[in-house]
Amino acid sequence: MKIAIMGYGTIGSGVAAVVERNAASIAKRVGEPIEVKYVLDLREFPGDPIQEKVVHDIDVIVNDPEVAIVVETMGGVEPACTFVKKALAAGKSVTTSNKALVAKKGIELLDLAKENHVSFLFEASVGGGIPIIRPLNQCLTADEILEITGILNGTTNYMLTKMDREGVTFDEVLKEAQDKGYAEKDPTADIEGFDACRKIAILSSLAYGSQVDFEDIYTEGITKITDTDFKYARKMGTSIKLFGTSKRAGEEFYAMVAPVMINADHPLYAVNDVFNGIMVEGNMVDKLMFYGRGAGSLPTASAVVADVVEMAKNPHTTLVTSWSTKKLPLADKGTWVRKFFVRAAENTEEKKAQVEAAFGPVSYIELEGLNEFAFVTPEMAEAEYEKKAAFVDGILQMIRMDV
Amino acid sequence: MKIAIMGYGTIGSGVAAVVERNAASIAKRVGEPIEVKYVLDLREFPGDPIQEKVVHDIDVIVNDPEVAIVVETMGGVEPACTFVKKALAAGKSVTTSNKALVAKKGIELLDLAKENHVSFLFEASVGGGIPIIRPLNQCLTADEILEITGILNGTTNYMLTKMDREGVTFDEVLKEAQDKGYAEKDPTADIEGFDACRKIAILSSLAYGSQVDFEDIYTEGITKITDTDFKYARKMGTSIKLFGTSKRAGEEFYAMVAPVMINADHPLYAVNDVFNGIMVEGNMVDKLMFYGRGAGSLPTASAVVADVVEMAKNPHTTLVTSWSTKKLPLADKGTWVRKFFVRAAENTEEKKAQVEAAFGPVSYIELEGLNEFAFVTPEMAEAEYEKKAAFVDGILQMIRMDV
Repeated sequence: MKIAIMGYGTIGSGVAAVVERNAASIAKRVGEPIEVKYVLDLREFPGDPIQEKVVHDIDVIVNDPEVAIVVETMGGVEPACTFVKKALAAGKSVTTSNKALVAKKGIELLDLAKENHVSFLFEASVGGGIPIIRPLNQCLTADEILEITGILNGTTNYMLTKMDREGVTFDEVLKEAQDKGYAEKDPTADIEGFDACRKIAILSSLAYGSQVDFEDIYTEGITKITDTDFKYARKMGTSIKLFGTSKRAGEEFYAMVAPVMINADHPLYAVNDVFNGIMVEGNMVDKLMFYGRGAGSLPTASAVVADVVEMAKNPHTTLVTSWSTKKLPLADKGTWVRKFFVRAAENTEEKKAQVEAAFGPVSYIELEGLNEFAFVTPEMAEAEYEKKAAFVDGILQMIRMDV
Repeated sequence: MKIAIMGYGTIGSGVAAVVERNAASIAKRVGEPIEVKYVLDLREFPGDPIQEKVVHDIDVIVNDPEVAIVVETMGGVEPACTFVKKALAAGKSVTTSNKALVAKKGIELLDLAKENHVSFLFEASVGGGIPIIRPLNQCLTADEILEITGILNGTTNYMLTKMDREGVTFDEVLKEAQDKGYAEKDPTADIEGFDACRKIAILSSLAYGSQVDFEDIYTEGITKITDTDFKYARKMGTSIKLFGTSKRAGEEFYAMVAPVMINADHPLYAVNDVFNGIMVEGNMVDKLMFYGRGAGSLPTASAVVADVVEMAKNPHTTLVTSWSTKKLPLADKGTWVRKFFVRAAENTEEKKAQVEAAFGPVSYIELEGLNEFAFVTPEMAEAEYEKKAAFVDGILQMIRMDV
């Protein structure tokens, strides 16, 4: 069984490593050895054992009937999409770790795979090495999914964990994450929540069986979270995490990416550092949680190669993914009901009177040495919160709560 | 698509409820509706909507060609095994939630299913509603599994959590668990670890691809764990959990069920109350953790019905489970290397001199008002620990550590 890897970066080289290091056990599972025949990349890799396999022309792969499975680990929508389409059209099954591609073109590529009696899988596109796509597709089939909430981005989780534990500022921790290689030079995709947005779009599309467009998801990153917020969180016994969330409320569906304040009893509270965690709530199974390394060369490659093994065991078959072309309309975030953590400037009786005139009686949290205070609102729709908050001067921060 | 349920107890009735309540979404996934045609039970259920479906003779089910799938939720090895064999031999796929049956007869039933071109699945036999069998079979296929450690029994986890949080004694918490219906009148299978033993035997057989006999697994329950142990644990920032564990160490394989002391950074530390959690470590993916409800009518039934859905979508096929007849020999627990938490009577200099003569320098933990003390040994093989411990008089407790 010959495969080709498109893109020899962090994940692509991990795929080559996994296939080599676990060759014996993989061959046992598939029934024959798996061998990397080509690596497509613009670069050369002198000294690397795969150098002799490097090709620069996708058509070499597409036109070789020996190649049954193609691994796409290039990242980005183009040229990955064009290359994947060529491979599928040529009757090759494809697995990808590329969340941008899956979020944007997933349904189209699944259809093309079906037409060509091959498979298009993407376990590694969300949660790195954590099995989540296949469990949603095959294990939670007796349930109606009520909610999916994930810590889906390891970089921001590392940063928030560090801020929580060490009291450092956002700028300090971003610099450190960049120095350590956890955050990129341009960290926008991570810290603005764009990465998590694509991932929750993919999970939601699978969970609810209808297309959730990532462009429709309200997305807020962690750039406004400060060390002061974490001082309050510590005093309250809470933490702040970047959540990608979607949920069903009656006939409505909501989705959002935003920092959320949670209590210690939340299943995702203990998901720290670069780890990812995904909570799925079904109407029968209740709450499940999946935890592991959401990034990194070998863990992500492990998920890619598991897709390869499944496709190798099921040739000339389309492994079914429940993702329909029907678009899922998302409800306005203004109607999403929850509590809000709010900080207001100037710790005076007048200001508190203003707060209570707007929100009714609330409990206050105060930090020594700061001329400000915080409070938690009752449960209310976000639009109602915004309306009421307009009557309070000097609001410094609002963080949504999941408590 | 008609199914039959054998055994209308907690889980069997849950299966009927799931099939009815999620009928629409299940029909969409399968491509046709799923209907319960028969319920096999010794009892009648007057007033229950399934009463008209109750039969008392397995042959009614076996001889009805309309029944394609049989659900076994009776529990116990016999007569469940005989009935499952009859169903498989008649060309019906079977799913079971019965860990005793799977641990004892799994490999035989898988072979029989294969001979008859049908499937034998058992997702619900371990971890209740938590997807773990299918992830091991289909998602972790690129990895060599290095360790599986699970909190696999909700009853004992509830008891240990209660002892940890409230400082109550073992006898008090057992009585409460029985009053609440979490523990049975005869709680032996739970508190002596027999239930966890069967579950870790099943998981280990799948993870390492060879038969692990539950009779070979050293099994120790929680009956010797006291409120005093938890006082030390609290002081040390640790907790005590009942672990079913198996691991690969070089060419050796170990398996054990025993109470284990863990730190707050262990992935299973936050698995409390009746919840289950299963940690799987692969050589590529590193540590994963799966968390959810390990028991209960609807969560367990959710896993059973997910098996039904998969079998309904793949008729006349044997869904493959990697479980070989080759027996996996387990290494002697005496060679398992770890740290040990030890309590000794009489807090005197002489006694500590005895401890240090045997174990070398150790750090002590002392509780006010108790004429005893505790210490943590360096890492050593269990046989070595036992040899050294024989030189210390009045050892009150030994708890293995995973730190």
